[in-house]
Amino acid sequence: MKGAQAILETLKFGGVDTIFANPGTSEMALVRALDEAPGVRAVLGLFEGVVTGAADGYARMAGRPAATLLHLGPGLANGCANLHNARRARSAIVNVVGEHAREHIALDAPLTTDVEAVARPFSIWVHKITEPNRAGQDAADALVAARTLCGPATLIVPADVAWSEGARPATPRVASARIRPESAAIEQAAATIQQYGSRAMLLLGGGALDEKSVAAAARLAAATGVRIASETFNARAARGAGRLFIPRIPYFGETAEAFLADVEVLLLVESREPVNFFGYPGRRGQPLAPQTVVSIVAAPGQDGSGALQSLADLLAAATVVALPATTLPDRPSGAIHAASFAAALARRMPEGAIYCDESITASFALPQALAAAAPHDELDLMGGAIGGALPLATGAALGSPDRKVICASGDGSALYTIQALWTQARENLDVTTIICANRSYAILAFEHLQIEGHPPGPRALPVLSLDQPALGFTALARGFGVEAQTVDTAEALDAALAEASTRRGPLLIEAVFAPMMLPGAPNLGRST
Amino acid sequence: MKGAQAILETLKFGGVDTIFANPGTSEMALVRALDEAPGVRAVLGLFEGVVTGAADGYARMAGRPAATLLHLGPGLANGCANLHNARRARSAIVNVVGEHAREHIALDAPLTTDVEAVARPFSIWVHKITEPNRAGQDAADALVAARTLCGPATLIVPADVAWSEGARPATPRVASARIRPESAAIEQAAATIQQYGSRAMLLLGGGALDEKSVAAAARLAAATGVRIASETFNARAARGAGRLFIPRIPYFGETAEAFLADVEVLLLVESREPVNFFGYPGRRGQPLAPQTVVSIVAAPGQDGSGALQSLADLLAAATVVALPATTLPDRPSGAIHAASFAAALARRMPEGAIYCDESITASFALPQALAAAAPHDELDLMGGAIGGALPLATGAALGSPDRKVICASGDGSALYTIQALWTQARENLDVTTIICANRSYAILAFEHLQIEGHPPGPRALPVLSLDQPALGFTALARGFGVEAQTVDTAEALDAALAEASTRRGPLLIEAVFAPMMLPGAPNLGRST
Repeated sequence: MKGAQAILETLKFGGVDTIFANPGTSEMALVRALDEAPGVRAVLGLFEGVVTGAADGYARMAGRPAATLLHLGPGLANGCANLHNARRARSAIVNVVGEHAREHIALDAPLTTDVEAVARPFSIWVHKITEPNRAGQDAADALVAARTLCGPATLIVPADVAWSEGARPATPRVASARIRPESAAIEQAAATIQQYGSRAMLLLGGGALDEKSVAAAARLAAATGVRIASETFNARAARGAGRLFIPRIPYFGETAEAFLADVEVLLLVESREPVNFFGYPGRRGQPLAPQTVVSIVAAPGQDGSGALQSLADLLAAATVVALPATTLPDRPSGAIHAASFAAALARRMPEGAIYCDESITASFALPQALAAAAPHDELDLMGGAIGGALPLATGAALGSPDRKVICASGDGSALYTIQALWTQARENLDVTTIICANRSYAILAFEHLQIEGHPPGPRALPVLSLDQPALGFTALARGFGVEAQTVDTAEALDAALAEASTRRGPLLIEAVFAPMMLPGAPNLGRST
Repeated sequence: MKGAQAILETLKFGGVDTIFANPGTSEMALVRALDEAPGVRAVLGLFEGVVTGAADGYARMAGRPAATLLHLGPGLANGCANLHNARRARSAIVNVVGEHAREHIALDAPLTTDVEAVARPFSIWVHKITEPNRAGQDAADALVAARTLCGPATLIVPADVAWSEGARPATPRVASARIRPESAAIEQAAATIQQYGSRAMLLLGGGALDEKSVAAAARLAAATGVRIASETFNARAARGAGRLFIPRIPYFGETAEAFLADVEVLLLVESREPVNFFGYPGRRGQPLAPQTVVSIVAAPGQDGSGALQSLADLLAAATVVALPATTLPDRPSGAIHAASFAAALARRMPEGAIYCDESITASFALPQALAAAAPHDELDLMGGAIGGALPLATGAALGSPDRKVICASGDGSALYTIQALWTQARENLDVTTIICANRSYAILAFEHLQIEGHPPGPRALPVLSLDQPALGFTALARGFGVEAQTVDTAEALDAALAEASTRRGPLLIEAVFAPMMLPGAPNLGRST
């Protein structure tokens, strides 16, 4: 068997059924092997950032590892920003990256780069296959690494390894269950919660935000008064009506400090000690009060959901949770801004939807509003590398084909990987994309104010503004084969989302936001 | 003075007047400094691959170094594919890449990566500034590195270095003239050419394809019979009617072997010994016959143009060149394919145009046809990293604002960095983009045939095909604010190019190619 076949067969044995691909000449033997590996299906992305972001979304929703097929160092580099996000999301992905034939590498042909060096900053494991007879075992090792180290594992495949005979598939051996924290840690946490009550906080992250975890957290809060919070961004969180509302650590450091000020003990459940997204002049980088004690209940990768359920059984066995009633927002009207956007989205969130969020400044009112929305899973941008949401939604729809996907993205963000729309059209995915079109990199105007103490001046403003010309998202969507409409009132947005919930297939709604006012500066997002 | 200001002032002293930018929070002090550095203008790209590709085009045409402003590791990674192309083009670029504030790096915030590790595979020089008082000198060093080592130099700027006081600008000291080869090397080459005549070949690359070089090469060929050729892809080559037609080393190895078979001595002028783009099963990686002797007249970065002129003065002082008459192709008709595309483009190439080429399989008939076109400069994709042409054209238009830019790209290629169109619209650049829409990655279908011996099968074909749905390039262009039209006959393409040559400003022409036939396979590019 050829190396390429052995790799695909091995990945198939390991549970991979979908490979997100943007191949080139050095991957032709791998492309050919697709014809001979009926259990693995290739999904084409027009740009590698789509490929890797979709793999992330697929892995988060399918509960199976995802795979990518990428072309040499530059193709891999194009996918690295979303691999960064996938690494922060701890998504199990095997990147199969073609390399020149072994004898060709030394010739420094035009496309030659150090592929291992490109992969390393964005992978939890990197290996180049040296011989065809190693192809199967190396692919198995990559899969085990992706699943046990939880992140993108990059397997580099020289073209001649792929096209040569002498390979055989291997069986990846991965224990399926996650490690449960020791009972001593659970008992210690239980004692702490009993002692501190509302002066303790359980900080949930990773797999500790699934439906069972949230239910256990609700019982714990009801029985003991312990505060429950989640990390600022989460790979997958069960939210909406009928579930405990779990506030997030606020994004900006000062607000986060206030949120955490009274916490005497912070109990980490698949989460990390909070760190501000960026450093600012004269400010601390960590929002936690210096006197707060930090204790680990479950480390990232351990079974935090199981730990929460054990804690609830210890402390809240007889507790019946009575959640406060939630009310959906009234039908919004007038201009579209963060509040009216949040109201429309909350009202129209389909039950059981997957909600992918990269709405940035448009998201300020979302958490409270979505607490009353129909139950849904929220998938966030995990590594802050802009351009995650559209690919993520694409992969999530493939990984969970029976659920509707709603994706909200800033206009600036969407333009990094707008090509994802074509894959949505080709695969007829049930994704509704909302573009929050404020026609600026609005977050950066805020940040300029924060860091420099004043808004951007006339020569700096153009690099933060997305008008002149305004982007036509409906035209862009149609160019990629996706139906689209523009709305510029909250009523129209509400109606468009209501209609979207009754249909299947890809759709884009461009929501034109009211211009954003910054004190002392020209408006951002003034339409041209 | 703040670090950010010192960096911009230093770059300005070094000849940088344009900085291609896609900044984030960690670059806010640098954005602010734009307001205080009136000599440096920022041009926004919606995606970092646009930013770096435009910098490449700018550097190739302006004869001044270009600069970029990028956000952390993921932003830099998004720009790396076109930095790879720029490195292969030997374009002088300073990448200013923001990094977290120094104290923040150790906290492993979500966007933290090893920025230096990301930069290294794609840069000829990498340095992180450690103290504000080093900012000016480090920026000067980056500029000197970019200009003398000829490629992208990456300067990493921690946010607090940029926002802190205590910096001062420095003066980059670069000798402006390139090093001329020693006269002994020139005399040796002259003797070889006299001895071998048409059994010798001068292989031109780099700066040895400018107008003066081509004129000198014409005199040498006329006087001595020496063969003249260029590398397969060239950063900038003077071509068209009234200039010596300089054939390229063919792309595919077997054709290149035949082209070079009779060469007894290969004389390198700013070029490298030929290497095939990819390795293939059972084939050599280098097309040069084993017995061919290779000799260096001018190494890459030396003054090959001066060397050619010295050689011409030695060997062809009295030679008057009579170039063979060229005739423009007749007006093409019928379907659009490589030949009719080449005819239309040759007929309608504006005099003095800059032609950016990434037309791939559509380019097969171009070299011969463009030999008769009005004189123009051709800029090729240098590193094979797909998605170069549209950004390259954008930067070339800014670097040479009085010349019309014509850009031809495959449809697949264009989609990696299609966002470049928006920058063309915003800056009102005089760029006509021709999309060669064969609705497939046609080159990969050829390569599948070459490597596997048969065309792709039914499960592999979808990853090489761009239909279902067909891409609507006119809609995409309009979405980015660029006028556009579709043509599907050679007559209409010819007319559209004729009209384009009479107007200014950005325009896109989608040329729908006839479906490509591969023996034994379903047609590629069948429209849906």
